[in-house]
Amino acid sequence: MAVYTEVSDDALVTFLADYDIGDLVAFRGIAEGVENSNFSLKTTRGDFILTLYEKRVDPADLPWFLGLMEHLASHGITCPRPVAGRDGKALRRISGRHAAITTFLPGVWPRRVRPEHCGPVGAALASFHLAGAGYAPRRRNALGPEGWAPLLERSLPGAEGVHPGLGADLQAALDRILAAWPHGLPVGHIHADLFPDNVFFLDRKLSGLIDFYFAATDILAYDLAICLNAWCFEPDLSLNVTRARAMCRAYAAIRPLSAAERAALPVLCQGAAIRFALTRLYDWINTPAGALVTRKDPMEYVRRLRFHLAARNEHAYGL
Amino acid sequence: MAVYTEVSDDALVTFLADYDIGDLVAFRGIAEGVENSNFSLKTTRGDFILTLYEKRVDPADLPWFLGLMEHLASHGITCPRPVAGRDGKALRRISGRHAAITTFLPGVWPRRVRPEHCGPVGAALASFHLAGAGYAPRRRNALGPEGWAPLLERSLPGAEGVHPGLGADLQAALDRILAAWPHGLPVGHIHADLFPDNVFFLDRKLSGLIDFYFAATDILAYDLAICLNAWCFEPDLSLNVTRARAMCRAYAAIRPLSAAERAALPVLCQGAAIRFALTRLYDWINTPAGALVTRKDPMEYVRRLRFHLAARNEHAYGL
Repeated sequence: MAVYTEVSDDALVTFLADYDIGDLVAFRGIAEGVENSNFSLKTTRGDFILTLYEKRVDPADLPWFLGLMEHLASHGITCPRPVAGRDGKALRRISGRHAAITTFLPGVWPRRVRPEHCGPVGAALASFHLAGAGYAPRRRNALGPEGWAPLLERSLPGAEGVHPGLGADLQAALDRILAAWPHGLPVGHIHADLFPDNVFFLDRKLSGLIDFYFAATDILAYDLAICLNAWCFEPDLSLNVTRARAMCRAYAAIRPLSAAERAALPVLCQGAAIRFALTRLYDWINTPAGALVTRKDPMEYVRRLRFHLAARNEHAYGL
Repeated sequence: MAVYTEVSDDALVTFLADYDIGDLVAFRGIAEGVENSNFSLKTTRGDFILTLYEKRVDPADLPWFLGLMEHLASHGITCPRPVAGRDGKALRRISGRHAAITTFLPGVWPRRVRPEHCGPVGAALASFHLAGAGYAPRRRNALGPEGWAPLLERSLPGAEGVHPGLGADLQAALDRILAAWPHGLPVGHIHADLFPDNVFFLDRKLSGLIDFYFAATDILAYDLAICLNAWCFEPDLSLNVTRARAMCRAYAAIRPLSAAERAALPVLCQGAAIRFALTRLYDWINTPAGALVTRKDPMEYVRRLRFHLAARNEHAYGL
């Protein structure tokens, strides 16, 4: 579900009067995305997306996100481009929320990941990392390593109820990961949430990337580790090495991975797995009954974490 | 939320190969509608809606619904038109569900009802009733008067927990309504669910009607009574007589109301109010915690019911 805030027809007409994007033709809520309210907006000039930023997004970050999208779109990355109002501003307000219109991206996200998706995702991620280099402002990754211990602490009281021994397991894994966390690896802007529902394909080609609202400045290879977690596991939660190899090779063909980055891959993958295990665990414990959001099972990432903890080196990922 | 069944990209491509509607451009779940899964589908030929019929819809009724939409669209009613596959059939299967593609309707449903919406809704409803006359097959209204007593019976055990005395109040009201239910009024095909989210407006004109999956053959003026309930009450649940008068007059200008229909308006409105009170009460009691559907408060219709029970005659509605 992704409509938390309704937009009245009056408010919409008033809002659109501040843009030069044609007249309203249609407006429908989109049942995708979990953080913000998204609407498909059709005007006499074409298709757009209206996003209302909900409470999980810090308004202070919005100019950074929109600036990044604009920068990436201007540098060869197919992603939604913020559409400015007549006053030149893309970030506006409607129905008590910060909001922005972006361009519409053709494509369909893959409900079932196939090996042939993984190379294009690796290549797109590397292109994103290179294109992002020219965007000067930085954003701290609140869900990076510094954020994991506080997240775990807040979830520990409920962890035992999710799975016996889960809290102790996560605490031990986190201690190990933080002790081994690499320093000095190349840093840049990362997407940090490039899951299948954020990547569109059309005619078997990658047609665009969406949803930059977790993007931040962090270790570039950590973004690859997030994608390995998100795209390369089988439904039984074993790693598909063919997918992982395709993703890493396609990435490295565009942005070569240093020996240090390759060697760090197991711990980066451990970090990525624990990051999603921890946020899912927190949401699992704290989502009220009857909420509109489907809770995602944290154990799916705990199992990935176990795989990564057992990986001896980058060869486990086909490198 | 209105995506209960996911459609894999493979299944979608295979499904679309059976149509002559161009190539896939985009596919997004729509966060509207509560009974079925709806997707906005864009191809190189234009925009369409893909509906997957979920468990509340009886598959045996689907040909009737699609036939009605086709008939109405051919007779001047702006509504989604079923799109046939290459074999001439509109009703097909995808992802384990019966499914149909329909044409896309421009417009926006009014999130906030204004008096000027109500006349056009009355006129569109009357046009629908006239246009439906040439569609021969009939469909029994499972949520008509015969369905109310069984619905109440199944909700009685939980009614007291919703509001003290609610079960006894509804039982008394239902007895009174069924005893007074009119016979011999004109019958035809009714929409039976013409709420604001099923009516699109564009440039302040009504641009179309959607969601015919409660349509049935029943008393025509009962459909007007449903619309009076759905469109003409203030947020404080008092009737707005200006809206009701505008709706009834616009209706009668296209399909004149007989003296018997006018006289029956209070009991028809009571019936419409108890119908929605009962289905909402049933869902309220039986919706599991954590379900994706927002439960709607049955008391909103109990309060409307009280208004209608106190209405002495059709003058209460501005007639």
